[in-house]
Amino acid sequence: MYRTHNCGELRIGQVGQTVTLSGWLNKNRDYGAMTFIDLRDRYGITQLVFNKQTDSSLYEAAKKLGREYVLKIVGLVSERSNKNPNIPTGAIEIIVQKLAILNGSKTPPFTIEDETDGGDEIRMKYRYLDLRRKPVQENLFFRSKLAIETRKYLADQDFIEVETPVLIKSTPEGARDFVVPSRMNEGQFYALPQSPQTFKQLLMVSGFDKYFQLVKCFRDEDLRADRQPEFTQIDCEMCFVTQEQILNTFEGLTKHVFKACLDVKLPDFPRITYDEALRRYGSDKPDTRFGMEFIDFTVLTKGHDFPVFDAAEMVIGICAEGQADNYSNKDIKKLTSWLQRPQIGAKGLVYVKYNSDGSIKSSVGKFYSDEQLQTWLDKAGAKNGDMLLLLCGETDKVRSQLNELRLEMGNRMGLREGGFNPLWVVDFPLLEWDEDSARFHAMHHPFTSPKEEDKERMLTGDHATMKALRADAYDLVINGWEIGGGSIRIFDRELQAKNFKLLGFTDEEAEAQFGFLMNAFEYGAPPHGGIAFGFDRLCSIMKGASSIRDFIAFPKNNQGRDVMIDAPSPIDKTQLDELQLDLKPID
Amino acid sequence: MYRTHNCGELRIGQVGQTVTLSGWLNKNRDYGAMTFIDLRDRYGITQLVFNKQTDSSLYEAAKKLGREYVLKIVGLVSERSNKNPNIPTGAIEIIVQKLAILNGSKTPPFTIEDETDGGDEIRMKYRYLDLRRKPVQENLFFRSKLAIETRKYLADQDFIEVETPVLIKSTPEGARDFVVPSRMNEGQFYALPQSPQTFKQLLMVSGFDKYFQLVKCFRDEDLRADRQPEFTQIDCEMCFVTQEQILNTFEGLTKHVFKACLDVKLPDFPRITYDEALRRYGSDKPDTRFGMEFIDFTVLTKGHDFPVFDAAEMVIGICAEGQADNYSNKDIKKLTSWLQRPQIGAKGLVYVKYNSDGSIKSSVGKFYSDEQLQTWLDKAGAKNGDMLLLLCGETDKVRSQLNELRLEMGNRMGLREGGFNPLWVVDFPLLEWDEDSARFHAMHHPFTSPKEEDKERMLTGDHATMKALRADAYDLVINGWEIGGGSIRIFDRELQAKNFKLLGFTDEEAEAQFGFLMNAFEYGAPPHGGIAFGFDRLCSIMKGASSIRDFIAFPKNNQGRDVMIDAPSPIDKTQLDELQLDLKPID
Repeated sequence: MYRTHNCGELRIGQVGQTVTLSGWLNKNRDYGAMTFIDLRDRYGITQLVFNKQTDSSLYEAAKKLGREYVLKIVGLVSERSNKNPNIPTGAIEIIVQKLAILNGSKTPPFTIEDETDGGDEIRMKYRYLDLRRKPVQENLFFRSKLAIETRKYLADQDFIEVETPVLIKSTPEGARDFVVPSRMNEGQFYALPQSPQTFKQLLMVSGFDKYFQLVKCFRDEDLRADRQPEFTQIDCEMCFVTQEQILNTFEGLTKHVFKACLDVKLPDFPRITYDEALRRYGSDKPDTRFGMEFIDFTVLTKGHDFPVFDAAEMVIGICAEGQADNYSNKDIKKLTSWLQRPQIGAKGLVYVKYNSDGSIKSSVGKFYSDEQLQTWLDKAGAKNGDMLLLLCGETDKVRSQLNELRLEMGNRMGLREGGFNPLWVVDFPLLEWDEDSARFHAMHHPFTSPKEEDKERMLTGDHATMKALRADAYDLVINGWEIGGGSIRIFDRELQAKNFKLLGFTDEEAEAQFGFLMNAFEYGAPPHGGIAFGFDRLCSIMKGASSIRDFIAFPKNNQGRDVMIDAPSPIDKTQLDELQLDLKPID
Repeated sequence: MYRTHNCGELRIGQVGQTVTLSGWLNKNRDYGAMTFIDLRDRYGITQLVFNKQTDSSLYEAAKKLGREYVLKIVGLVSERSNKNPNIPTGAIEIIVQKLAILNGSKTPPFTIEDETDGGDEIRMKYRYLDLRRKPVQENLFFRSKLAIETRKYLADQDFIEVETPVLIKSTPEGARDFVVPSRMNEGQFYALPQSPQTFKQLLMVSGFDKYFQLVKCFRDEDLRADRQPEFTQIDCEMCFVTQEQILNTFEGLTKHVFKACLDVKLPDFPRITYDEALRRYGSDKPDTRFGMEFIDFTVLTKGHDFPVFDAAEMVIGICAEGQADNYSNKDIKKLTSWLQRPQIGAKGLVYVKYNSDGSIKSSVGKFYSDEQLQTWLDKAGAKNGDMLLLLCGETDKVRSQLNELRLEMGNRMGLREGGFNPLWVVDFPLLEWDEDSARFHAMHHPFTSPKEEDKERMLTGDHATMKALRADAYDLVINGWEIGGGSIRIFDRELQAKNFKLLGFTDEEAEAQFGFLMNAFEYGAPPHGGIAFGFDRLCSIMKGASSIRDFIAFPKNNQGRDVMIDAPSPIDKTQLDELQLDLKPID
């Protein structure tokens, strides 16, 4: 037997007992006559004592042990004279009587401490050592707990977890699929699911009523920062349900997991429409932990011979409270350059400072009188010491640019630290017109239903009508991150066919790819809808972390590689032959 | 709102309430003045009444509705005059006041009944309709419940669920991998995991102590009956643990899920060694719901001038109780032919009948006197009316043949119906010598540890020693099915390297494929071991079903195809080009 207790378990009440412990040598300290070893396992740390006077050979053996050695000891639980109040086992120590080295250890390539000296790359290569560090372990324990509480809530609400297949069919819509060549079906491929969307809809057609699954999904995208080729979703679907019921159910789920896992009681989630979100924040996923909402200066600024504003479709700004005195001309210049980078692409930045002495200063002071500028400040509700920042241009672009500026100012002013501000963004457009490809894209996905009042118009309307269609689609946003998104689905064959047509599918393509779903709609499909949460992202937001990688046991890097196991990798020619595949010669 | 209640919810106490229900038209019966409709959802069936006198247009509308139409109704809960005690809602019916058709339905291609008229193929093509049938739904609800109880037990025992990656690295050892071409890493492939074996071992090296995962695994095998290319495992690993502790933990899990999901209290599981299982049953996964154990007649039968037995390495038999009078010469002949099919390959069958009148009859009566045959019957403990069935040949082959005969006789005698007989089979050989390839194969897998007392011999012994090595490997067997299997693992680099060498790996191959694991063993790897259960199989055994397909929402057929979505399928040339792949021309 390797242990009678774990390393986090012994207390003052067990003094006098002989125990067996196993674990890792976390730290050793030699004081000449005594050596102390911190023995570590998942559950905690227990101090071991080796006394030279009592047993000199054991003492000598202990002195030679290195960090991360795996030890098994037998010893006597004793009260510590110097108690350590910082750890639960701090009242006791073990006077060691027997010592066995279960395994040795080379010196780890980085320190196994909360704050390690290892860089990202080396920690990923030795991920099994990185996973020994307490903060990393705690992240995975948190993830496990979040999964438990998610399942608990949903099962209590009569949801059934159903496993949907991983080897499915490739569909060109959406992101790029990972594909899997089939040996038994020559020249054919499976695809890995980007989501179980069609399967969960079929489960509704089957009458499962409330479905969920914690499920791996896959996207072969060029990996932007903090994307993973495989990721986990909380995938859900309900039938005979309205958008209102779905929002309430999953607001309930979110509140439950925050309470159960973080002891945070979330308030009711505000709901704003997509249009309102863009108008107030320039984003469909606003960080509402702080205000600094957009103010529309278009009317106020026009007709004063400032050609830039006069020519602009829209002039909008934000009021940065108390920032007037913090920004020198040089600071403003820097901020302007930051906004002019190609990633943001603003043309310029206009400021109006309401100085603490009551004077007004602006980069457009020669076009606007103080009186006129005062009307801007009034509209913004600005106080002494505040600063207005204005951008102008085409509506979509200027909103997106001002969104970036708002978030940046939020960061600089410390308004985006801690706290949780969830909200629902609703009434998304159904379709998005893409000028480049001259076709519509589905704003959510091709199965999303237009709002009841838009269904008829969708079947009969013109191009402009299609652009204006609104969907029963909704996103859950927390602190500026889209945590979940879903919609009420089309459950009518004709409407689904029309949607595919709008999205540029020929009838043959729609039939080949989604014929099974449209057929299913002809055999008594019920109204249904659902939502999916990004589970990795939810973990990271809840723990205030910046990267989802911290919550994945064995993540891939930005090239989609697992550097620990060195995957992907070449495969044998015989494997390729069995799959009837040739590699193209490399140019 | 689609419903105030579901279709399984209303009772006599709700009489007088106005309710809204939605569901599927399960059945309608018209009696001239009244039409009754059974409205069905996941939760049950509620009877709707349309009265011609009260509302003739509603009555006419209801008459036109077809099976599987999706309806929403508003009506008054009323007490039934003819109560139906067979359904929970049988005391009430709904006098319908408003009717809305949410969706129509074509006539389904088979009946949505417990016993359907649909063949396997059509039901798979319309799986979403097959899934409406109650027995199929119940199977998936059972699966969901089994998953819940599995997680509950393991979480209560401090196991943490960790998700391991799906996109990993191909390793030629074991079954064939499904591979996934990497677009970003040209010419390279991921593989889908056959199990998370190496990852769970690394989690032990990381100190997670107790890991589990309900996880999809993948094998590209030629599909024998009732295999699926993707299947689900309960995958577990523990560290600082002995085989005894693992067996107890997972015997506990098994007992828990049988009690919680079936209300069956399993007795303690017997344990027998691999050698004993082969000696007594000719199989390492014996169905122990019945006896009919092997009897060794080798010594008794030799030296009586029956050349077949005299030449045989082994003569063994079983005693089929009470079967003497049931088997005519013709029946014996048929049974012999059955045994001689190539799948079994027995040379012949010898019987000895202990007739109910006390006389003895045998196919080898001319070689053996009644007195001699009586010694066989005595050894078998046969009674009047019993029949001995004997086979002979080489040990391995004859045991395997007699195993088939024993199971067949068990079937014929009704000894294999119902009940659950779990047992542990332990002490498997570490290695299996394959004559054809003249190399060793891992009996369990290449990470399995030899028993403590065999470790030294493994590093230094000769070929014969290797054949005799025993492993700390164990299988959980129920009713003749291997439900789970596992082992204590090697955690020492030298021993692991030796094992790879024995299995025919060059040092370079071992390093390329499993270098990360062997490296991990050098940084303080703890002793560890684990087990994996076939989750689909466990479902089917617990429910007494014959096929795992019944417990998979969207299974594949024996050609690995999903006939509903028609996958796998060809992919676009652009997809192939992006992956730098060419299809080989078809010959």
